[in-house]
Amino acid sequence: MKKFVNDPKAFVPDMLRGIALANPDTLTYLPEFNLIMRSDSPSQNKVSVIQGSGSGHEPAHVMAVGKGMLDGACPGDVFAAPPTDYIVEATRRLASDKGVLLLVNNYTGDKMAFEMAAEFATAEGIHVRTLFINDDIAVEDSLYTIGRRGVAGNFFVMKAVGAAAEAGADLDEVERIGKKVNAATRTMGVALSACTPPAKGTPLFEIAEDEMEVGIGIHGEPGRRREKIKPAAEIVEEVVEALISDLPYEDGDDVALMVNGLGGTPISELYILFGNAHERLAKHGIKVTSSYVGEYCTALDMVGMSITLVKLDSEIESLLAAPAQIAARVF
Amino acid sequence: MKKFVNDPKAFVPDMLRGIALANPDTLTYLPEFNLIMRSDSPSQNKVSVIQGSGSGHEPAHVMAVGKGMLDGACPGDVFAAPPTDYIVEATRRLASDKGVLLLVNNYTGDKMAFEMAAEFATAEGIHVRTLFINDDIAVEDSLYTIGRRGVAGNFFVMKAVGAAAEAGADLDEVERIGKKVNAATRTMGVALSACTPPAKGTPLFEIAEDEMEVGIGIHGEPGRRREKIKPAAEIVEEVVEALISDLPYEDGDDVALMVNGLGGTPISELYILFGNAHERLAKHGIKVTSSYVGEYCTALDMVGMSITLVKLDSEIESLLAAPAQIAARVF
Repeated sequence: MKKFVNDPKAFVPDMLRGIALANPDTLTYLPEFNLIMRSDSPSQNKVSVIQGSGSGHEPAHVMAVGKGMLDGACPGDVFAAPPTDYIVEATRRLASDKGVLLLVNNYTGDKMAFEMAAEFATAEGIHVRTLFINDDIAVEDSLYTIGRRGVAGNFFVMKAVGAAAEAGADLDEVERIGKKVNAATRTMGVALSACTPPAKGTPLFEIAEDEMEVGIGIHGEPGRRREKIKPAAEIVEEVVEALISDLPYEDGDDVALMVNGLGGTPISELYILFGNAHERLAKHGIKVTSSYVGEYCTALDMVGMSITLVKLDSEIESLLAAPAQIAARVF
Repeated sequence: MKKFVNDPKAFVPDMLRGIALANPDTLTYLPEFNLIMRSDSPSQNKVSVIQGSGSGHEPAHVMAVGKGMLDGACPGDVFAAPPTDYIVEATRRLASDKGVLLLVNNYTGDKMAFEMAAEFATAEGIHVRTLFINDDIAVEDSLYTIGRRGVAGNFFVMKAVGAAAEAGADLDEVERIGKKVNAATRTMGVALSACTPPAKGTPLFEIAEDEMEVGIGIHGEPGRRREKIKPAAEIVEEVVEALISDLPYEDGDDVALMVNGLGGTPISELYILFGNAHERLAKHGIKVTSSYVGEYCTALDMVGMSITLVKLDSEIESLLAAPAQIAARVF
C-alpha cells in the first residue's frame, strides 16, 4: 500500500488533527466526536448547518467548515457513516435558536444515522431538520443507496445553504434553498483506477490497464458499465450528454460547471476535461458562467473525475458568489 | 497509460485552453506562445512578474497568474523549458516602465532559455532581470541542475514578489524581496511512485511496491536514496530534520509550513503529514504561524509530497498575507 499513513486505524483522527493544527484561529476540533466546528459557532442569530459522511472524500466535508459554509462537520471512519451519537453531539454543540440543518448525502447508512440523530435532538428540544442530497445520475439504487447517490454536487448545496444561513435566512428559507439547488444539480463520474482504504490495504476492485468505470460511485461502487478508455473529449461527451438529458438543460441555459478530481488525478488533466466539457456545452447553446476545477469530493486515491452541472438562476448565482472562508484553499 | 488526455502531444495546449475557459474575465491566453497573462496587465505603474518552466507542475505556474502574484506565465512542454522566443514574447507583451522580473526555477535548460531571453529583451530596450529559485536541499547538482533545484518553495517567492510588485515597489526592491524569501526557504520531497509523461506513456522510473525515493525531484530525478516505506511520522521526521539543519532554523523561530502534494496524493494524507510536521517542529521550539496544505507544485501524477519551511520575519509574513486572486482556488 503506497500511502503516507501511521496506524491505518488512526487515519481519520490523524487527518483531523492536521486540519485543526492548520487552522488554529478558525476551527475547533473535538477528537472524541470527530467534530470539526467553526470556533465562532454557534451564533443564535443564524441557522447552523452541519454535514457528516464517511471520511475519504476530502475536502468534503471537514474542510468546508467556515464562515459562509458549514458550521460543523462530523465525519465517520473511511467510507463509513458517522455514529449517531457523534451527530447528536454535533447538533447539541451547534444548536441555535434559529434551528439546525443537517445535510446528508443519500446513502442508506448515513440516512439512518442522521434521521435517528435528528429524532434524539428533537427530543432534547433542538429545532433540527435533515436535507438529503442526491445529484448522481449514474444509477438509481446501488450498493449502498436506495435512490440516487449524493456526490460532488453536494458542494453547491453546502455553498448556497451556507450563504443563505450567513445572511440570516430562517430555517424554512435555508431548507428551501438547499432543496432548490439539489434539484438543479446533476453529476456523473468516471474512474480509471480503484481506491485503497488504508485499513484494508488493497484496492476495492480490480480494473484492467485499458479500462474505465463509467458512472463510478465515490466509494468505488459500480456505475453504469465498464468499457475501454477513450480520449478525454469522448469521455466528456458521454458524461455531458447524460447530464443535460437528465435535468434537462436547454439551449440558452446558464450553468455552473464543475470538474472534480477523485483524489489521484492531476490538475492538468482536470483542465483538459474542463475545456472539453465547456466546448461540448457550447454546442448545445448552454453557457458556462461559473467554473469550478479541482478537488471537491474525492474517493481516497482514486484516479477519476466527475462532472457536475448546476442550472443557474439569479438567486443561485448570487448565493454561489457570496464570500466563504474555509480550510480548503490552495493559495 | 491511465490518463484523461486527447492527443498526448496537445497535452499542454489542451490544458491551457481549459484554464483560459475557466477564467474568461481575468486571464488572456495566447496559444501561439503558451502565454497565460492577466487581462489587465501590463500596468506601467508596477513591475511585471513572469515565470515559466516546464509544464506538469500545475498549479505552478500558469494557475498563479492573477492580481497579487504573476502577471504572466509561459510554460514549455511537459518537463521541458519554454522556448526562448516564448519568453521574449511574454516579456514584450508584459513590458512595463517599472521593469520586468523573470522568475526561474534553477534547472539548466530553464536557466539558459531565460538568460538568453533576458538578453534579447534588454537589446530591445526592456528593463528586465532574472531571479533564480533553488529551495530544494535534497541534492547539490543533479540530472538537470548545477546547484540546487527550484521546487515548491517557489510559491513563496511568487507570492512575496507579487505582493511587493502590486504595492508599487520598484524593480530593485522587488528583486531584493525575491532573493530574501528564496534565501529563507527550504524544501525536500519524497515519492512513493514515479510519474508518467503523457507523450511517453510509461513511468519515468521503476520503484518497488514497498519503496520510496527520499529527496525526489519534480521531474522524477533521483534524490538522496531509495529506502523502504516508513510510517508517515518517520518520513516527516527525516525530512524536517534535514530542513531545519540546513538553514538552520532555531528555537523560537516562526515559520510558514507547506505540505505540497506531487499530483497523485490525496488531501487526507497531506493533512496527516502536516500534523506530524507541526508536532515535530514544536519539539524544536519552532512555531508554525502560517499553514499551506495542498498542491502547489506537482510532478504530473506522482504519488509523493514535499515539505517546505520559510523562516518568517514581519516583512515576509505581511507579504505572504497580502490578498491574491488567481486561477488556483479550491472553493
